[in-house]
Amino acid sequence: MKKIYQYSQSRALFERARRVIPNGIPGHFNPAVQKPAGTYPYFVARAAGARFWDVDGNQFIDYMCGYGPMILGYDNPVVEEAVRAQVSRSDTCSLASPIMVELAEFLVDLIPMADWAYFAKNGADATNMAILIARAATGRRKVIAIEGGYHGSSPWMQAPGRTGITAEDHAEILRIPWNDLAALHGVLDEHQGEIAAFIASPYHHPVNQDNQLPADGYWQAVHKLLKQHGIVSICDDVRAGFRLDMRGSHEYFGYTPDLSCYCKAIANGYPISALVGIDSLRDTAAAIFQTGSFWFSAGPMAAALVCLQELQRLDAPTRILATGRKLLDGLVNIAREHGHELIVSGMPSMPYLRLAHEDGIGFHQALCGECTRRGVFLTSHHNLFISAAHSDADLQLTWDVFDDALASI
Amino acid sequence: MKKIYQYSQSRALFERARRVIPNGIPGHFNPAVQKPAGTYPYFVARAAGARFWDVDGNQFIDYMCGYGPMILGYDNPVVEEAVRAQVSRSDTCSLASPIMVELAEFLVDLIPMADWAYFAKNGADATNMAILIARAATGRRKVIAIEGGYHGSSPWMQAPGRTGITAEDHAEILRIPWNDLAALHGVLDEHQGEIAAFIASPYHHPVNQDNQLPADGYWQAVHKLLKQHGIVSICDDVRAGFRLDMRGSHEYFGYTPDLSCYCKAIANGYPISALVGIDSLRDTAAAIFQTGSFWFSAGPMAAALVCLQELQRLDAPTRILATGRKLLDGLVNIAREHGHELIVSGMPSMPYLRLAHEDGIGFHQALCGECTRRGVFLTSHHNLFISAAHSDADLQLTWDVFDDALASI
Repeated sequence: MKKIYQYSQSRALFERARRVIPNGIPGHFNPAVQKPAGTYPYFVARAAGARFWDVDGNQFIDYMCGYGPMILGYDNPVVEEAVRAQVSRSDTCSLASPIMVELAEFLVDLIPMADWAYFAKNGADATNMAILIARAATGRRKVIAIEGGYHGSSPWMQAPGRTGITAEDHAEILRIPWNDLAALHGVLDEHQGEIAAFIASPYHHPVNQDNQLPADGYWQAVHKLLKQHGIVSICDDVRAGFRLDMRGSHEYFGYTPDLSCYCKAIANGYPISALVGIDSLRDTAAAIFQTGSFWFSAGPMAAALVCLQELQRLDAPTRILATGRKLLDGLVNIAREHGHELIVSGMPSMPYLRLAHEDGIGFHQALCGECTRRGVFLTSHHNLFISAAHSDADLQLTWDVFDDALASI
Repeated sequence: MKKIYQYSQSRALFERARRVIPNGIPGHFNPAVQKPAGTYPYFVARAAGARFWDVDGNQFIDYMCGYGPMILGYDNPVVEEAVRAQVSRSDTCSLASPIMVELAEFLVDLIPMADWAYFAKNGADATNMAILIARAATGRRKVIAIEGGYHGSSPWMQAPGRTGITAEDHAEILRIPWNDLAALHGVLDEHQGEIAAFIASPYHHPVNQDNQLPADGYWQAVHKLLKQHGIVSICDDVRAGFRLDMRGSHEYFGYTPDLSCYCKAIANGYPISALVGIDSLRDTAAAIFQTGSFWFSAGPMAAALVCLQELQRLDAPTRILATGRKLLDGLVNIAREHGHELIVSGMPSMPYLRLAHEDGIGFHQALCGECTRRGVFLTSHHNLFISAAHSDADLQLTWDVFDDALASI
């Protein structure tokens, strides 16, 4: 029997937070998304490698990795030393730092489709910039996106019906189902000459739903159509980037977008995003105006360069995919031993799990909550993330906890 | 005679940059905005206190302060130590860190109108979130903004006519001149019941134009009207924040907005922005969805908390305003001795300078360029920024360089 964690310090701090922050913890980190209530911690005290410790002193193996950013392990010494060295020289300043050029050169070498790179802070900065470039390049306004696809929290990207979001925000967004070429043909026919861009992640990883890989030939067929119609192809690799293929997740699936967006894992948690593009969009990218107060900060750029070098040295995508497969094989087997079917979807380096049960999602939520309060942190509504820091010992402990949690519910 | 700087390493690095980054250096840092060509460096090698050194080894007293973020001096030991201590514990993780609560509590104590705080990365994240909250709270869409006002580079905020920006982006933005109550009455009459928000900086600091303070009674009259019409007042304090008054620049001018946006100087260069608001907008702020990959990073929050504490300890706004006044008095006198009128506008802690000359702006640009290549870094198109690190010795050297530069042109 594993120890069951208590979260009294987390709860006390959350009560303080509620007085001074809307929702206490806002956005996608809000505790209300973690069900059942009481099974999750709210605040972290320390993080190292694949683990973190909450403010109650409970230790967790972390399968969310900061919702993606952590890929080399928390407090990675190589990344931290590179950041320290850079910020002791320059960070945010009145000029750019040479590291910006080195990082752009590295990305252009690394990613075959990339002829140039542009840096920002949020993933949404990169996706918004990609849309702006596509509109400027085509002289058109409309954008095709996938139903349930997420490209940041700007109003045009948000699910219709969310607070403050109105029809005007979505007026130019054409949502089609994933893997649906007929639907793509439909919007292309209906909006001839009006469509600037098609934006999608390299595979479909919505929340609260099984993830879906591209069907055989899907991306190739999509790109043939986009070329025929002069539509800019935008790959949103913010979530999957560097967990499938160092050259970009589109390479894993054998297609070539015109623009690709990176963020999350690019700098092991330091705040930077990148937009890379093909040569024929370079002049348009140069002509648009996009900037931010900290877009030239050198520390996060140093983190990105050394993080990417480390990922390359470790052949991290191969390693993380293998770790994921091993983890998942074990979990599926343990579930089966308990008489359950654990349904795994998406890529093994960022899998989406769902335990099939007649009681619906509540059973899977209870399972994730019981794992969490036994020291294996995972959520029930979102894909997980595996890192290069997850070890065989972590997997063994995870299987033990999973077994114990399944027995308990 | 001062030494005239050469920039061969900057130029060589810029040639490399142009191959892999659109425009070489994108956005508002692009060298093309610094005229005359050849008078400005492009890349920084090291920064400390009020100075930086470019990649050619030239030393500069920096009056741009990273375009605002640097307020305590580069590489400030108190801030750097706080960041190191925080990131060695936790930074970007799967949970928020306690520092988020401490920072929110500090801001709510510091800023009288603030009942809550919400953190992001870019200044534009805060202004966009403010607009979304105003729309959600009012059920209206239109936004009043000031002609020439800048609130980030999102399409709705950009000057019409910029590449990729179309009429649709501006459909709901009503631009009125600064200090123009009649114009405000006009849009209120024309768009009864349609206007969600009025967004403006606490005083008008456009680029390429003399800056303007609020006329006597302007803000009070504006707020009386906004209240009558149920319109949310948004203060964009991204640029001026903590250089006029620790309690918010609106306090300096004696008015109370409903929402206020901070970024730039809040963390001495670390990437974080904040939106603060009044209690009656708390539930709406809790109901909207806004988030980003690094919005919970603890390092920049630690930087912000200790930066604000240091600014408070030093009574930094008072100090920086005094330094600015002293600097400007000297510059105006030196200009007069050379037979020129130096026109100073805006607040002394972030003044806008313009040397009146029959040849137009070209003369002022040449002057700024000659100052820069003698070691006093300033631009001719944008307000300058003074910091708490600028010393009397810096001012004396600045006056000497200004005198020498004026004599040279």
